[in-house]
Amino acid sequence: MAVSPLPRAGAQADNDDSRQEKPMRLSILLFDGFTALDVVGGYEVLANIPAMEVEFVSNHSGLVASDTGRLGMAAYRSFGQLDATDILYLPGGPGVAAALGNAALMACVRRLHATSAWTVSICNGAEILGAAGLLKGKKVSTNWFAREHVAAYGALVGTERYQRDGKLITGAGVSASIDAALFLAALIGGEQLARTIQLGIEYYPAPPFGNGTPDEQPQMAKDLVRHVEQHGAARLAARVIPF
Amino acid sequence: MAVSPLPRAGAQADNDDSRQEKPMRLSILLFDGFTALDVVGGYEVLANIPAMEVEFVSNHSGLVASDTGRLGMAAYRSFGQLDATDILYLPGGPGVAAALGNAALMACVRRLHATSAWTVSICNGAEILGAAGLLKGKKVSTNWFAREHVAAYGALVGTERYQRDGKLITGAGVSASIDAALFLAALIGGEQLARTIQLGIEYYPAPPFGNGTPDEQPQMAKDLVRHVEQHGAARLAARVIPF
Repeated sequence: MAVSPLPRAGAQADNDDSRQEKPMRLSILLFDGFTALDVVGGYEVLANIPAMEVEFVSNHSGLVASDTGRLGMAAYRSFGQLDATDILYLPGGPGVAAALGNAALMACVRRLHATSAWTVSICNGAEILGAAGLLKGKKVSTNWFAREHVAAYGALVGTERYQRDGKLITGAGVSASIDAALFLAALIGGEQLARTIQLGIEYYPAPPFGNGTPDEQPQMAKDLVRHVEQHGAARLAARVIPF
Repeated sequence: MAVSPLPRAGAQADNDDSRQEKPMRLSILLFDGFTALDVVGGYEVLANIPAMEVEFVSNHSGLVASDTGRLGMAAYRSFGQLDATDILYLPGGPGVAAALGNAALMACVRRLHATSAWTVSICNGAEILGAAGLLKGKKVSTNWFAREHVAAYGALVGTERYQRDGKLITGAGVSASIDAALFLAALIGGEQLARTIQLGIEYYPAPPFGNGTPDEQPQMAKDLVRHVEQHGAARLAARVIPF
């Protein structure tokens, strides 16, 4: 059943010819060790597009553990059940490494991308698309730490917070899910829709210690984050999952 | 077991005397119809503070349905089980209205706030604190739509994206969870810690249609969002929950 959190404007149709109101499906793929904000930043935007049906997909129905092991999210479709979707959405996280070896997930990605209207990756979720052979010559963004990994798949990796190459929408790390999804929401339903969703999630950022770019952060911060990223498997293995 | 995603600096201790490394507990209260980004924006920051133990709490263990009914999150502690915590965290969402009538939740909030080191609310989660009698004369932020509701509890509601009044940290709507949590992370562990976490989640926002404030958005956008907010109960009742 379509969830329509925003009322259809009906007779109050705005001048935006590109507004999308026929049902669309958003399929968010989850895998053990995903990063929750990669998912929820984009979900909170895209789920509020009128007539958007949202589904969470994994190996099987059930709880999927995030990278911290403390947040569990429900999947209720399995990779093998999906034939097609409108928006294929790949989050990232330290679980990507194992996801690359998940045959059902990788087959699902290739199958859905073939007919998707849009394919989205956030953070190092781009590595999944790269490993599926879908990024050759494509302009993409990914998180700061994964740039070389994604480039190794033949992608043209940029430093933009989000990018579009055809139907491919890719975002930088984690919180870039919000910006990338607002950009996509406008492509689907027009700028007014995107700005209304922006108001609904009050995305008027004011980072307490200022804005910037990953590249210009202090070396010590970069070294710490790189250390965490490089020890993703150990971090996942050390989780004590309470659900 | 404490999750320590960032390595303890040990002999590499920085000059920040306020860095917090003894275990702290973050208790995130969930209720049916919560808004997921209210939770995950703050969670993704605070869970990355070294030695932070994170728990999700609800009426009982099990899945809690978000406001869209499509995202389900796992709770594994119940309100009655909690005696105390370091950080009490209240998200918002259309489910707040029913949460106000949830005796176990409200008792948990009063009990935990009595000894918490920090009490955080995001969005209209502030209404829960208000109804618990905890905001009289306090300077708080909440989402744009709920300002009058929260003021009715005696709070001094401002338009800031996040505020501090003593141990009370309150954020504006939904995505303000990120900014508020980064601010709190610095109070707990110092500015360098907060800036490192900011890099880890790549929170260098670039909203595609610009920044601003809720108040200066077009009237039509405000009317649409107000309409959605006013029909929260109907929206929740219309959910078809697949898990």
